[in-house]
Amino acid sequence: MSDRLIVTNGYRFRRVVTPATEGTIGLPTGSVTAEEIRRIGPGGSFAAGPERYYVLTQDLYDHLMYGLRRETQIVYPKEAGYLLLRLDLGPGRRVGEAGAGSGALTAVLSRAVGTTGEVHAYEIDARRIDLARRNLDLPGWFENVRFHHQPLEDGIAERELDAFFLDLERPWEALTAVQAALRPSGHVGIVVPTMNQVTRTLEALDAGAFLPIEIVEILIRNYKLAAQRMRPRDRMVGHTGYLIFARSLTTAPDRCAEEADLVDS
Amino acid sequence: MSDRLIVTNGYRFRRVVTPATEGTIGLPTGSVTAEEIRRIGPGGSFAAGPERYYVLTQDLYDHLMYGLRRETQIVYPKEAGYLLLRLDLGPGRRVGEAGAGSGALTAVLSRAVGTTGEVHAYEIDARRIDLARRNLDLPGWFENVRFHHQPLEDGIAERELDAFFLDLERPWEALTAVQAALRPSGHVGIVVPTMNQVTRTLEALDAGAFLPIEIVEILIRNYKLAAQRMRPRDRMVGHTGYLIFARSLTTAPDRCAEEADLVDS
Amino acid sequence: MSDRLIVTNGYRFRRVVTPATEGTIGLPTGSVTAEEIRRIGPGGSFAAGPERYYVLTQDLYDHLMYGLRRETQIVYPKEAGYLLLRLDLGPGRRVGEAGAGSGALTAVLSRAVGTTGEVHAYEIDARRIDLARRNLDLPGWFENVRFHHQPLEDGIAERELDAFFLDLERPWEALTAVQAALRPSGHVGIVVPTMNQVTRTLEALDAGAFLPIEIVEILIRNYKLAAQRMRPRDRMVGHTGYLIFARSLTTAPDRCAEEADLVDS
Amino acid sequence: MSDRLIVTNGYRFRRVVTPATEGTIGLPTGSVTAEEIRRIGPGGSFAAGPERYYVLTQDLYDHLMYGLRRETQIVYPKEAGYLLLRLDLGPGRRVGEAGAGSGALTAVLSRAVGTTGEVHAYEIDARRIDLARRNLDLPGWFENVRFHHQPLEDGIAERELDAFFLDLERPWEALTAVQAALRPSGHVGIVVPTMNQVTRTLEALDAGAFLPIEIVEILIRNYKLAAQRMRPRDRMVGHTGYLIFARSLTTAPDRCAEEADLVDS
Repeated sequence: MSDRLIVTNGYRFRRVVTPATEGTIGLPTGSVTAEEIRRIGPGGSFAAGPERYYVLTQDLYDHLMYGLRRETQIVYPKEAGYLLLRLDLGPGRRVGEAGAGSGALTAVLSRAVGTTGEVHAYEIDARRIDLARRNLDLPGWFENVRFHHQPLEDGIAERELDAFFLDLERPWEALTAVQAALRPSGHVGIVVPTMNQVTRTLEALDAGAFLPIEIVEILIRNYKLAAQRMRPRDRMVGHTGYLIFARSLTTAPDRCAEEADLVDS
Repeated sequence: MSDRLIVTNGYRFRRVVTPATEGTIGLPTGSVTAEEIRRIGPGGSFAAGPERYYVLTQDLYDHLMYGLRRETQIVYPKEAGYLLLRLDLGPGRRVGEAGAGSGALTAVLSRAVGTTGEVHAYEIDARRIDLARRNLDLPGWFENVRFHHQPLEDGIAERELDAFFLDLERPWEALTAVQAALRPSGHVGIVVPTMNQVTRTLEALDAGAFLPIEIVEILIRNYKLAAQRMRPRDRMVGHTGYLIFARSLTTAPDRCAEEADLVDS
Repeated sequence: MSDRLIVTNGYRFRRVVTPATEGTIGLPTGSVTAEEIRRIGPGGSFAAGPERYYVLTQDLYDHLMYGLRRETQIVYPKEAGYLLLRLDLGPGRRVGEAGAGSGALTAVLSRAVGTTGEVHAYEIDARRIDLARRNLDLPGWFENVRFHHQPLEDGIAERELDAFFLDLERPWEALTAVQAALRPSGHVGIVVPTMNQVTRTLEALDAGAFLPIEIVEILIRNYKLAAQRMRPRDRMVGHTGYLIFARSLTTAPDRCAEEADLVDS
Repeated sequence: MSDRLIVTNGYRFRRVVTPATEGTIGLPTGSVTAEEIRRIGPGGSFAAGPERYYVLTQDLYDHLMYGLRRETQIVYPKEAGYLLLRLDLGPGRRVGEAGAGSGALTAVLSRAVGTTGEVHAYEIDARRIDLARRNLDLPGWFENVRFHHQPLEDGIAERELDAFFLDLERPWEALTAVQAALRPSGHVGIVVPTMNQVTRTLEALDAGAFLPIEIVEILIRNYKLAAQRMRPRDRMVGHTGYLIFARSLTTAPDRCAEEADLVDS
């Protein structure tokens, strides 16, 4: 984004470079100056020792996967992309998030809603807010984010939000506050790592005014790059989290999700 | 979106309603007038016979899954969300697409880049362009889309596009034209249903100036909604397509992806 | 097996034929006599109308998938094959099972342990025992199976069994009885459809004398048969059940599985 | 099996012990004598330092996963179990295999067909045959295995085999020889790591006399052992191989698998 570039050998090695503030950059095989990288520019390449390196603009995906400092489990692109669609986010939307953690999802939300939108990032741990702020300190980007250092239980000042995403240990305790902050028919999204949390969350959604409910997990499978020997990579990520989505109603439904689900499917 | 609403029982039944132009709406158990639905408004509910129905705003996801008329296989949300991130799309981006098909992905791209962005949708089948246009005929939405009724092989007029997505039978034949239309370091995304097409595409990327390359498939697994009997649904979608991503370089790499991939991983 | 044959068009149509007792057999395109099928024999083929049909010996897989009358969810080959290995079954082993249901797994266990082995199939529903008996009524096969019409809670008469497999609503209630029937270091296998049951079962195993514990699910993905258009089938089975395996100890472990698992992994 | 035992802490640490021939056995926390382990016996436990260890009989699964010396990629239990069912193996069956590799699948086949069956293991690499022989050198086990140090192209001496399993670089070159060795209606099973090999194999099956054909992959997902935090493990095996199954006919089918598959599904 903006002023940052990526230097890569096209495979595992990737290095984020800020040409304006860096001097010499170490590579697996030699080194290069930031000035030289700026001169080569995006899409170009250079040799260093036996290896060729490529210069790319840093995009949001690179920032999430290689640029962020993480102290918490982040929401990965396979989930982040899907939730953009499920929460119906786009330019101009007003969205809330808790906990902000390292700011990875905050960055995705910020990009999606743009300068006409708003991101309200709640986080109870002051150190994580500092970390997220540093991770989001890219000139001209992420200026629509406002951090709130408080628990959701203390209340959410915003009203008529379009969507709210929860990445909390006990999301079921936050649903009442979230519903008060959402516009009617607004979206709530939740990620939890364990099935026991899914059960608790589903019970809470069932006891409240939320429908339709969706519970999914998303798996991504990477393939090797040999055209004559096409096959998935040997190892894959087996689990990151379960995603839960629901829409906010003004009155509670007559029957629980389970009952209706059985009737319906 | 905008003027449309969804009436749903919270489960399988979903009906898109345009209150301004409709009269009485049939339901599985009785009927309701559009006027009544407008009065109830988003988030509200009403009873019809033994069943309760809920009124929701129509969001983009609803439009893709329930509102579109389809004559072609569409790109599904699980893939569409991921490609938004991989193609680094956001407000203001200029993106190309071919073939536009029923316009499902066109809608997703349009929403993501917003009024400050551009979507150039190429499609060789005039009937599909008509269909896509009807599917995208929602007041105030999708006005950043321009359809091009021509094959990519005839050339792409745009230059310095940020990204291009290909949903074609033979995407490898379009790569040269796409690369000419992309800015250096821009993104190309491709979906193909078969592994033989992946092989052909990877060979073409390897022969050109594209790096890094990623090949993935994305699986989504839905869970039933019974909190005391948590389990995935019995059936799931087994396959939609393989996704391929690469970035455009100004010069071809020294060695092929396979070779480098083996060294690197 | 033995006296039964399969008539198939090589794809969806499959018909089990008992030549000794049948006359004319209806086909999607015409008919054939049992006498003719016997004459053609396994591996041979014949035309009926525009279609060609093939004669095959009926194997156990065919019997499970096409021959059995089912009134219950059966344990599928993807799970049945894996559990043969995990329960260390082979000729001469003595194995218990509850509930026997339609007899599908009973058939697999019976085949695996052979004439020198024993299968003890417990089932509390007399109608299901009748069904399983009919499903296993193939001359010369399954003679090592003994059905027990009683709940496990009434006690298991056998001692020193090598393995026991549970397909019950509440398997945790049967573990004490099962452990008494197993030889020290013997195997218990369990299938349950829901994650809530996995939790309850794991708690019970943890409270008892079982280690190591393994919890898995097995997914099978079928591919289409077009060599130039290789791709998985559009739909797949999303879930059948979770499998749990453990070995029986003579004394309870010091610490619970969770604690040790965290230390260890 | 037979005279071997496993010493384990119930989790990652597993050590195969042959009490008859070993003296003192080193453990992560201390040591134990083989004599002591024999005295404790299967199912029993002992403390060494702060840790408790358990004694178990060595089963076939343990032998495959922890006991074998491997120099090649082995066929894993998730595939091995499934192929036992698909190849219709059980006591008394006569089965062929090539290449035998480290003997892992040989062991599974041997156990399944028992003392009344036969396993013919073909392997062109003499060093691998030595390795497989050492891996199968357990008194009283695997005596039904006969190794053949020759390529399948030189011909298979056996006739009327019930099934043949191929784990070769170019399985399509072996199909004619395999078919000559199989009884009519017999089973062929094949594992290949890449989709390009699947394509080649399917073309060869299509050109020959084999039907029905099945192509699958099997995925196994392991769960963590915390009852209050149920979730899959973070990482899983993403790929081992594609499995192909077909039955041998006496005459070639009229139409290719693809054509029929399309008609049929």
